[in-house]
Amino acid sequence: MSIASEVDDVITRVRREVAALHAELPRNELVVWTAGNVSARVPGRDLLVIKPSGVSYDELTPETMVVCDLQGRLVEGERSPSSDTAAHAYVYAQMPEVGGVVHTHSTYATAWASRGEAVPCVLTMMADEFGGEIPVGPFALIGDDSIGQGIVETLRRYRSRAVLMQNHGPFTVGATAKAAVKAAVLCEEVARTVHIARQLGEPLPIPQDDVDRLYDRYQNAYGQR
Amino acid sequence: MSIASEVDDVITRVRREVAALHAELPRNELVVWTAGNVSARVPGRDLLVIKPSGVSYDELTPETMVVCDLQGRLVEGERSPSSDTAAHAYVYAQMPEVGGVVHTHSTYATAWASRGEAVPCVLTMMADEFGGEIPVGPFALIGDDSIGQGIVETLRRYRSRAVLMQNHGPFTVGATAKAAVKAAVLCEEVARTVHIARQLGEPLPIPQDDVDRLYDRYQNAYGQR
Amino acid sequence: MSIASEVDDVITRVRREVAALHAELPRNELVVWTAGNVSARVPGRDLLVIKPSGVSYDELTPETMVVCDLQGRLVEGERSPSSDTAAHAYVYAQMPEVGGVVHTHSTYATAWASRGEAVPCVLTMMADEFGGEIPVGPFALIGDDSIGQGIVETLRRYRSRAVLMQNHGPFTVGATAKAAVKAAVLCEEVARTVHIARQLGEPLPIPQDDVDRLYDRYQNAYGQR
Amino acid sequence: MSIASEVDDVITRVRREVAALHAELPRNELVVWTAGNVSARVPGRDLLVIKPSGVSYDELTPETMVVCDLQGRLVEGERSPSSDTAAHAYVYAQMPEVGGVVHTHSTYATAWASRGEAVPCVLTMMADEFGGEIPVGPFALIGDDSIGQGIVETLRRYRSRAVLMQNHGPFTVGATAKAAVKAAVLCEEVARTVHIARQLGEPLPIPQDDVDRLYDRYQNAYGQR
Repeated sequence: MSIASEVDDVITRVRREVAALHAELPRNELVVWTAGNVSARVPGRDLLVIKPSGVSYDELTPETMVVCDLQGRLVEGERSPSSDTAAHAYVYAQMPEVGGVVHTHSTYATAWASRGEAVPCVLTMMADEFGGEIPVGPFALIGDDSIGQGIVETLRRYRSRAVLMQNHGPFTVGATAKAAVKAAVLCEEVARTVHIARQLGEPLPIPQDDVDRLYDRYQNAYGQR
Repeated sequence: MSIASEVDDVITRVRREVAALHAELPRNELVVWTAGNVSARVPGRDLLVIKPSGVSYDELTPETMVVCDLQGRLVEGERSPSSDTAAHAYVYAQMPEVGGVVHTHSTYATAWASRGEAVPCVLTMMADEFGGEIPVGPFALIGDDSIGQGIVETLRRYRSRAVLMQNHGPFTVGATAKAAVKAAVLCEEVARTVHIARQLGEPLPIPQDDVDRLYDRYQNAYGQR
Repeated sequence: MSIASEVDDVITRVRREVAALHAELPRNELVVWTAGNVSARVPGRDLLVIKPSGVSYDELTPETMVVCDLQGRLVEGERSPSSDTAAHAYVYAQMPEVGGVVHTHSTYATAWASRGEAVPCVLTMMADEFGGEIPVGPFALIGDDSIGQGIVETLRRYRSRAVLMQNHGPFTVGATAKAAVKAAVLCEEVARTVHIARQLGEPLPIPQDDVDRLYDRYQNAYGQR
Repeated sequence: MSIASEVDDVITRVRREVAALHAELPRNELVVWTAGNVSARVPGRDLLVIKPSGVSYDELTPETMVVCDLQGRLVEGERSPSSDTAAHAYVYAQMPEVGGVVHTHSTYATAWASRGEAVPCVLTMMADEFGGEIPVGPFALIGDDSIGQGIVETLRRYRSRAVLMQNHGPFTVGATAKAAVKAAVLCEEVARTVHIARQLGEPLPIPQDDVDRLYDRYQNAYGQR
């Protein structure tokens, strides 16, 4: 098989994966209408696959996904890429360990984001997945690298794979697109649970030592080996 | 083809569109029982297509939709039109740019409406879609043009395509019926997110300049061209 | 056809109707597990049809429904009747205009009930359906006529077809079982909306004259004639 | 039939039951992603059947379930057991009357757990099912018997079949795995209802005598005999 057709095969596989993962966003009630997107890095290439702009989740097929370079420019596909493509591309360009990025406006995470308030780590599930608080990133306008820069600078200072962009909503990253989707689902769930806890009082803190132990164990021993 | 049968074709198409869009109301959890309706203007004619009164969403087919004139009088169809038809008709008569109208009692939007309080613009998603706050319209009784007048007078003073009628619920408009449904979905989502944000403190304001930039960009550059 | 087989036909039809209406309870998120029930009066007979006790909604068929007399005693059916049968039976015995009764522990209505607080009429949708506030009935133990008496005494003093039994949950009535289900759905929806409204301030009252006008119009002009 | 094949039959039946009951967790909105598990004791044997670790609910079949002994060690199955297996195993070893255990991070129960606060018994549904408040167990790290011990010590001091492990989430037990799932569903429902009730004031207490009467009646007379 030629090199060109091997690359085609990889892109076809990533298109399929990204299209399928978009179904998790409405299923987990993270999005309304078209307001959320998943992307994946194409392994071994400076390319990403992402949702087209303003297209409903029902219409998403592997073929409608678009391929962009790491400057966010359209490389392959008939539609305009998501208006959030520049932010995704910036993350892939700056963080080589990231294989997937998800952006939503999930309700509770966005509520914390609109107050510019980090979600404190008061649940064992949060310690497991995020290793501490979920931090807030700066307010930034769409249109240039500001959002991407805000995401990367914030994620570098925390263990968390989720960041709440102020007045905007959460971005999550992962080694794979599926891991980034999992982080988006758990980000909303813990944002919701801690919100509800705080409505009737203050949650009890978890000592930092215990947060460290839970995070270490979950990252290394959980799931199937 | 005769002019009469061309008009029939257009009406058939609009009936189909309006029937299909009603399915979005329960799907997006904007309505319970029969408490919400979608209408569309018949292009090039002083007519609208709307849901019949008190019929469940499961029973809605293109054939059960009814056609009314812009005074809200039944022109075609076997059932009584929605009891909100007068309000829809008044909007079409006064706002020629409107092609679709949606009315619901979606929970969070109605909660703001019952306090007579506008939803402040503290989310980029709100700046994108509504260009500022979602305003409150006057308390008005059903039965004459009061509701329609309250909607039109309020919408004329704001960029927002949604208005919260006091103690009643939201009405949204759009260039098409689908755009009005999208506005209804996003109206509830931002009403909910800002409500939740305010339960634990004050959301951070977005400077007016930035609201303007976001609105301008979203109205002109978002989606597929 | 003999009189006996005509009665059989009527009971068969009511069994079918009551079984089908139970599906509306989980669909409208009014119940978890087996915690809710619908009954209907058998027209022209001192009998009612109701759900068997502790059976899941998935297993409900017309055949599993049970028939009881207006003292709540089992007349026909292989299973024990719902443990709430005595309350339903008492309502039918005392209120001849009632053709259907529904009991749930729907979350927001039950929350108001646990504080012993009526839901104030601050929504046009409430004025339409309930004609005023949704009142609270007394705390009463299961096992005799106490619950039934509490329901009947409270409903007689209000227009509302819903009553919130203290620390327990809502009961609703209607001319038909379907109307009682509709009242249960709207009772939860307005309990939820007014709860949410009050979380951030006081809803604006609707003047009593306007409540009266809305109620009168909705009861007489809404829906298909 | 040989004894060995009879044991095989029993294990096959329990695998099937446990796999099917896992579907109730997402259906009742008790879990996101893979964050919850059901187990059942194998009757007459010191064995339990439980979910494998980190596997999605869609992929759960009777064959993927794993069998462990009452020290939590894998006995049969190709995958690693749930990381919560030690806690389940400890409960079976210490409480011979328990036939099923469920663990979730259901939102409202976990919110109470994060504040270290018991859910007070202010609903007849709570008195029926739990016979009083739902208590809080100690904060405990995963990895040894601490969680199991915390569950057992707390459950022994209360009628409740549910315990809220501090900063972690609820564990429920039952005579059967189905009864433990029912307790998990009702635990979340009453945690949610009492939370909502308390957002706008204090729920009215139910006198202890009445709690006792309700509990006694429900445990002995409810459902089909």
